Amino acid sequence: MGDHSKRAERIMQRIDELASISEDEGRITRTYGTRPFIQGRNKVEQWMKEAGLDTRIDNIGNVRGRLDSNNAKAQTFVIASHIDTVVNAGRFDGPMGVLIGLDLAAQLGMSGATLPYNIEVIGFCDEEGCRFHTTYLGSKALIGKLESSLLDAKDATGMELSHVITQMGGDINKLNEDLIEAADWEGYFEIHIEQGPVLFERDIPVGVVSAIAGQYRAGLIFNGEAGHAGTVPMDMRKDALAGAAEFVMAVENFASKNGNGLVATVGKLHIINSASNVIPGEVICSLDVRHANEMILSQCYDSLQKLAKDICEKRGLTLDWNLVQHTKPVTCDEKLTRNLKNAISDSGYEVVELVSGAGHDAVPISSVSPVVMLFVRCYKGISHNPLENVEMKDLIATLKVSDNFIKTLIAK
Amino acid sequence: MGDHSKRAERIMQRIDELASISEDEGRITRTYGTRPFIQGRNKVEQWMKEAGLDTRIDNIGNVRGRLDSNNAKAQTFVIASHIDTVVNAGRFDGPMGVLIGLDLAAQLGMSGATLPYNIEVIGFCDEEGCRFHTTYLGSKALIGKLESSLLDAKDATGMELSHVITQMGGDINKLNEDLIEAADWEGYFEIHIEQGPVLFERDIPVGVVSAIAGQYRAGLIFNGEAGHAGTVPMDMRKDALAGAAEFVMAVENFASKNGNGLVATVGKLHIINSASNVIPGEVICSLDVRHANEMILSQCYDSLQKLAKDICEKRGLTLDWNLVQHTKPVTCDEKLTRNLKNAISDSGYEVVELVSGAGHDAVPISSVSPVVMLFVRCYKGISHNPLENVEMKDLIATLKVSDNFIKTLIAK
Repeated sequence: MGDHSKRAERIMQRIDELASISEDEGRITRTYGTRPFIQGRNKVEQWMKEAGLDTRIDNIGNVRGRLDSNNAKAQTFVIASHIDTVVNAGRFDGPMGVLIGLDLAAQLGMSGATLPYNIEVIGFCDEEGCRFHTTYLGSKALIGKLESSLLDAKDATGMELSHVITQMGGDINKLNEDLIEAADWEGYFEIHIEQGPVLFERDIPVGVVSAIAGQYRAGLIFNGEAGHAGTVPMDMRKDALAGAAEFVMAVENFASKNGNGLVATVGKLHIINSASNVIPGEVICSLDVRHANEMILSQCYDSLQKLAKDICEKRGLTLDWNLVQHTKPVTCDEKLTRNLKNAISDSGYEVVELVSGAGHDAVPISSVSPVVMLFVRCYKGISHNPLENVEMKDLIATLKVSDNFIKTLIAK
Repeated sequence: MGDHSKRAERIMQRIDELASISEDEGRITRTYGTRPFIQGRNKVEQWMKEAGLDTRIDNIGNVRGRLDSNNAKAQTFVIASHIDTVVNAGRFDGPMGVLIGLDLAAQLGMSGATLPYNIEVIGFCDEEGCRFHTTYLGSKALIGKLESSLLDAKDATGMELSHVITQMGGDINKLNEDLIEAADWEGYFEIHIEQGPVLFERDIPVGVVSAIAGQYRAGLIFNGEAGHAGTVPMDMRKDALAGAAEFVMAVENFASKNGNGLVATVGKLHIINSASNVIPGEVICSLDVRHANEMILSQCYDSLQKLAKDICEKRGLTLDWNLVQHTKPVTCDEKLTRNLKNAISDSGYEVVELVSGAGHDAVPISSVSPVVMLFVRCYKGISHNPLENVEMKDLIATLKVSDNFIKTLIAK
């Protein structure tokens, strides 16, 4: 399968080349449908062609490259990630998975191996959802699950998604011509940076994703009574911030004590009409709760709501609790995951199972196909940030593991 | 001393009349030096004239009315409060004290009593400090302690204080012609709404102020590490908000446990770059601590700083702690306060001592004169708000108590 170091170097060069194509001077921003996005996508298509893949740009804007099996009835195995980025992004989140996938397909093509499935490498066009605040446009379109209402979504300048699709050369009436039917899926493999610190802290290059966490998001309002910070005695106060602070502590304590992968975060907190000499009367905050198991997730979410209610009751505050979003967990395919674990240990690495706390294109795809994911260590777990980094030695490890995984796959 | 009900009714009518003179349609705003301020001040001067007082508008803009003693060497006893307001103010904060003072002087004048001191009623021009962010302009000028640098202070439109003084007809070179020399002060009496809930909760019409609390104000920055709310396990987080929340709880707990009048408040709290799916990396907040005793105040301030440091050390956060302001407590005059207590019990009311958590013109005056203050119950302790209210029966109680107090005063 070629020299891993040389392959990793070329992948790293391509990651850098893609990173140099940006909407913003001096930082990486390549959101869906922009000129730099199209430039980057065309660059990936060119590389796919050079690797001997049959390429196409589909109507939503995904870039796709294919190795067809000789068996006309063969299903398709997809290796993919995304090529769009957040604003002021790192280099690896998305593109790394696409460019490794491209390399894997190129190796397969060169090897002349008999393919039991068609192999398709895809660079999804919109995973981050920065421009239209709608994630997974590319992978949803690929499985025919793009909600038609999304076509009316507007970006910050008021431009509609349907217009952007047309501008890119797509035809909104032909989106369904691009889809891979549910029956045609053999499986889906995504390689992505961890975006968390576990592999970094444990000093392990790669990890297998057992599940993608489900998530509850809620908006809370604590209502008390504003008052003069100098004149209202402590025992006569209804301090909304003190109530919210007690909840922040309760959330941290609950998630830490429950362990087993539960994460819960208050990321936003805002005092209405705040002043240093005014007792806070109203506080708005957010709650984000994630877990890989839907039953545990729902129970924890309910428990946190109960905690907030109890705090407010005790303090004479009123509580407004609004569910903003609920997404269910995705469990990765047992057989593919077992194969990936074997590939890791065959490559000489410790096998670590991780729950992905972040969402990925694998989430929508999981509704039609078995999915499997490999996480790659990133520096301190930092992502969505220019400091995002993957070391060359971890790219090499990823290639070794992936080669072993692909070997099992086509040996079937 | 006349019929208390009739006097209280007239005072209430005048409070309403003054409240109708405003910069803003539909709400009360009468900040220093504005046309409505001058209108209101002229109205007060007219009432002073009708009461037979010798009136003047001094150079900084205070309105003053005087009953001179027959004794040419007599000192001066001042009864005062302020006539400026905050934006969207209540009716009573300031004007009530001035208009009751005016009534007391009018009664004294009509009674023909021999005055051992000159009696001067003053409506201070700027206690709230809303326009130039500098409190006590009027009372500082009265004692010759207005810092000359303040004359360069600019309002929101860029207009300088010195210009506003000239515009109102004052002469900035003659400010010292207005002062009451330190040797000439017999005492200072201020009647003010409590601006806190103690009298309201205890169902008592008036209270005597034992001291005006000293205050520390600090600005804090908690620095941790921003991270993805889905991917960083609970035990790997450096959540700046969790640290700040623990501090908010510690502040509340410390002040509540220490009792004895300590109040401590986190009134502002802001997360830098907050998002519901991002672990807070940096939080800025304020701390306001007040107590009537300087030694206790300083000790508590130090203890709270220690608590913040301990919290940050435990959590791997860094702490920035900046002292913003420190004002020392003012103790009210023992003899005048004893007389006021007697006046309260002679009027048939329970004697309650309160510490004023808010600042008053009595603070600067206390550097040259014995001061005494009477607090009047206000609805739920609400002030700086259109809901601010004093009931007629409490105005009557205030007049009874004040009459008894003045009786002792001139009987000296």
